[in-house]
Amino acid sequence: MKDRAETSIEFWYDFASTYSYLTAMSIQDLAEAKGLHVCWRPFLLGPIFTAQGWKSSPFKIYKNKGDYMWRDMERCAALYNLPFKKLLHAFPQSGLLAARAALCLPQGNIRADFTRHIFTAEFAQGKNIADLDTIMEILTAMGQDTVDIIARTDSQVIKDQLYANTAEAKSKKIFGAPSFITADDELFWGHDRLGQALDWCAAKSSTTKNDHAK
Amino acid sequence: MKDRAETSIEFWYDFASTYSYLTAMSIQDLAEAKGLHVCWRPFLLGPIFTAQGWKSSPFKIYKNKGDYMWRDMERCAALYNLPFKKLLHAFPQSGLLAARAALCLPQGNIRADFTRHIFTAEFAQGKNIADLDTIMEILTAMGQDTVDIIARTDSQVIKDQLYANTAEAKSKKIFGAPSFITADDELFWGHDRLGQALDWCAAKSSTTKNDHAK
Repeated sequence: MKDRAETSIEFWYDFASTYSYLTAMSIQDLAEAKGLHVCWRPFLLGPIFTAQGWKSSPFKIYKNKGDYMWRDMERCAALYNLPFKKLLHAFPQSGLLAARAALCLPQGNIRADFTRHIFTAEFAQGKNIADLDTIMEILTAMGQDTVDIIARTDSQVIKDQLYANTAEAKSKKIFGAPSFITADDELFWGHDRLGQALDWCAAKSSTTKNDHAK
Repeated sequence: MKDRAETSIEFWYDFASTYSYLTAMSIQDLAEAKGLHVCWRPFLLGPIFTAQGWKSSPFKIYKNKGDYMWRDMERCAALYNLPFKKLLHAFPQSGLLAARAALCLPQGNIRADFTRHIFTAEFAQGKNIADLDTIMEILTAMGQDTVDIIARTDSQVIKDQLYANTAEAKSKKIFGAPSFITADDELFWGHDRLGQALDWCAAKSSTTKNDHAK
């Protein structure tokens, strides 16, 4: 159990977050290339922004910052060969239902696949991820028990899990998404820090391996 | 004149900005390696933050973001082999006098050197750059006419120039520092985008050269 944690990286994301899309599409391959395992941790940025005194995304509150973000995302997506649609009139979307559905799926490849499908629907296809149909289509295409999962998104257990994830994000001083937390509790923020975060984990994990070998 | 602009990149910085320090120490070498010329554009973030409703740096207003920034700077500086001191109790410093002094110096290597010296005094040595002595020491060590320059920092011409720079930054939708503006008016924000901004300029500049050759 301890060994697994040492080679893992926590990826904290909100389904409304544009830069989390960039990370979601690349983190697993990059992590695996370094022998690391990704722990997919959906949470809600809303309560964290509210605690900072923001009533919406900073990209809505600060117009120049918002205009810049869309242009930057366009350039970054082109650089990474990712399809991308600007959601000028449908941003930020509510990621509540998608986050609850993600928590109904087991940690690992299935949750990872679902996460990538949701981000693709939202930022590559311009679909509304707050729409039950969008979520159901994805679950069905994945061969999941859609009816059961949708029912569970409304259960107290899943609601509590998302609440607990968000409270944990807050207690770990996360203030934006994507964020990364390493086994030794180092926090990295932003898609731009994905490389540094993975390098950090890989270095610590090899140090630990060497310590064990002694 | 046109050809020069096509191979140049504007580097917009505020002397209080931590991430501008990282850029100031590396941009010239990186730009020259791509055949690009750096235009050093000091400005004041204060009026831009005020217009966004902020009374101080966002790193002071949002505590978790501020705590993170110092840790992130520490990690980045280590990665780039740059000395770095956390200015926990002296941040943000007023960069007004330093910015005015920079504008007294000619665009190019002299202003670049002065800029690097100021950022080094502030973030590597923990000195106060609002202090006249700090500025004078640097100018004198550079062999500049310190008395004349200090007198000029108080002249209307230089005050107007800094005001005009800040107004231009605002009109170009700059909302943070460091920022980069290319010859075709593409805006890039943050030290993390320095590489993309230089690649953008280099690509445009080689396209233009090819067009001219046709």
